[in-house]
Amino acid sequence: MSALKNDTFLRALLREPTDHTPLWLMRQAGRYLPEYNATRARAGDFLTLCKTPDLATEVTLQPLARYPLDAAILFSDILTVPDAMGLGLYFAAGEGPRFERPLREEWEIRDLSAPDPHDKLRYVMDAVASIRRALDGSVPLIGFSGSPYTLACYMVEGGSSDDYRHIKTMLYSRPDLLHHILDVTATAVTLYLNAQIEAGAQAVMIFDSWGGSLTPTAYQEFSLAYMQRIIAGLVKERDGRRVPCIVFTKGGGNWLEAQAAIGADALGLDWHTDIGEARRRVGGQVALQGNLDPFTLLGSADAIRTEATRILDAYGNHPGHVFNLGHGISQFTEPDKVNVLVETVHSHSRALRASSKG
Amino acid sequence: MSALKNDTFLRALLREPTDHTPLWLMRQAGRYLPEYNATRARAGDFLTLCKTPDLATEVTLQPLARYPLDAAILFSDILTVPDAMGLGLYFAAGEGPRFERPLREEWEIRDLSAPDPHDKLRYVMDAVASIRRALDGSVPLIGFSGSPYTLACYMVEGGSSDDYRHIKTMLYSRPDLLHHILDVTATAVTLYLNAQIEAGAQAVMIFDSWGGSLTPTAYQEFSLAYMQRIIAGLVKERDGRRVPCIVFTKGGGNWLEAQAAIGADALGLDWHTDIGEARRRVGGQVALQGNLDPFTLLGSADAIRTEATRILDAYGNHPGHVFNLGHGISQFTEPDKVNVLVETVHSHSRALRASSKG
Repeated sequence: MSALKNDTFLRALLREPTDHTPLWLMRQAGRYLPEYNATRARAGDFLTLCKTPDLATEVTLQPLARYPLDAAILFSDILTVPDAMGLGLYFAAGEGPRFERPLREEWEIRDLSAPDPHDKLRYVMDAVASIRRALDGSVPLIGFSGSPYTLACYMVEGGSSDDYRHIKTMLYSRPDLLHHILDVTATAVTLYLNAQIEAGAQAVMIFDSWGGSLTPTAYQEFSLAYMQRIIAGLVKERDGRRVPCIVFTKGGGNWLEAQAAIGADALGLDWHTDIGEARRRVGGQVALQGNLDPFTLLGSADAIRTEATRILDAYGNHPGHVFNLGHGISQFTEPDKVNVLVETVHSHSRALRASSKG
Repeated sequence: MSALKNDTFLRALLREPTDHTPLWLMRQAGRYLPEYNATRARAGDFLTLCKTPDLATEVTLQPLARYPLDAAILFSDILTVPDAMGLGLYFAAGEGPRFERPLREEWEIRDLSAPDPHDKLRYVMDAVASIRRALDGSVPLIGFSGSPYTLACYMVEGGSSDDYRHIKTMLYSRPDLLHHILDVTATAVTLYLNAQIEAGAQAVMIFDSWGGSLTPTAYQEFSLAYMQRIIAGLVKERDGRRVPCIVFTKGGGNWLEAQAAIGADALGLDWHTDIGEARRRVGGQVALQGNLDPFTLLGSADAIRTEATRILDAYGNHPGHVFNLGHGISQFTEPDKVNVLVETVHSHSRALRASSKG
């Protein structure tokens, strides 16, 4: 493997000083990019794109060819693990992900087992290795997984939901069954992320998209505890370098202190939390990643500059900030607007560092 | 008007001692009740139900006939004000509220004006007066409105949305236009709530269902500031009694300190915030209303008792708690489960008070 030319992202995650604030965007390889839509059209459908390492590599690299981003993220779907567990992932047109066989019956739940990532998820590891080769050391590659609670949401509901009432009903009537799902899923995610690290992922992120729908007590018991177990089981170093882990609970800004205590190197923040306050609360323990409202990118160039500057200033000239959106980039974003953001983050963060040197 | 027999709810909102924790449920007159569905079927559609004072009275009283709740809430819709502004509210089958004429063009926005609540919203005032007569002093009646930002979300999007990108685009590109909508809407809501108080509402609640989708800065500027203006313009006393005002920003648990400073008597809490922590943060300034996860009611009776007790214990034996759900009751709730909740809240809160008297 080539030496890493830009390790700003990895250093910021470990709260080491950097000469600028590194930046990447959740869903940076996505539908706002015409070149992505072209590749997806060639693939035929979204799952083929995920499951074909050459195509996944191609789209992973597309945003990096346009913008000087500081990290790449594996192009994949968060539902690959339940798919490998046999639930039958598919995408109905305009409807988001669905499972052919959602978990409803006790026997289905008792039958679950953690898939070997080198077997049914081989295509993901092949994509990771292929992307690492293609990146050739330009920037680090992030691997990822959904959190156990988030995966369980989709597994029990059978797809996206506006209320997650099936899993909530299980949580409040058969918590033992939900714990069984989470237990198997946490084992599966640990194996999956370690396989990604072995294949070349230089940092990993756990997306807890739905942990924020819980009460504080249920969050600790049904989401955070399982993420803590995963982190305890992760490979911590690879090729002599720390492999940092980022945990992101969307809607979890109330619970940063609890999140900071589970062993992650960094926490993702959605746009509802002031990042300056978040740093004062947990910045002594973890780096922070975030937290621009993704819809700022639908606004004027001035608004993008104002909001990005506000976040950089709120965090202040301290190590440990990775700039990102608070959620995936909107498909309605004009690609040129991303240039405004990248330029602002890089130049303003350099200016901040220069000004405090006096 | 008859003297009020049970004023526990009003006293709790003013942080006066009560012998039990009062309780009502958001959307307590709703689709989980067979008698509600029967009245709605008779009405033909939801808007007719809202716009016919006799029917609105009938459904408002239905949950009180079943459960010893401590307050009634006007049966209406939060979108009556924009409907009276001429946007043309309708409900497409299974799709939620829509407007025939959403606000998109600058001239449409410049043309907006605050409707006279005694004219186009007369049916609401008639319902308030009719419900007060029917309640005959048994429990207080709550009036309500959507917050300006929440109403603007629907007015600009044309209905519900999963991302509110049209209003966000306006916020980040033409904030002047959004401020104009909010300015007119805040005036309309002030007139509307004062007319409800005049007609007999004994407390009012502002539902800020979508303020929580904003950044902390945008929340202050585009939602909280307008709610503050409304509260400053509200009639504070009626028939020699304070008319308390409750503000509820769903997803706003991060910002309770800011909310506590706008002059409201009480804050609503969704289920993502620990109510004990919330009390320690702002309990010296405001009462708190909440905050059971509504899906607890889909669980076992034991889970309902455990979660309700946890909330009562977390708040502790202090004045100023109104028990409620953190969001509207689910249509999938079995009516008998509500009995478990009401019984637990009333009996456990009485026991708490008795135990601390020693």
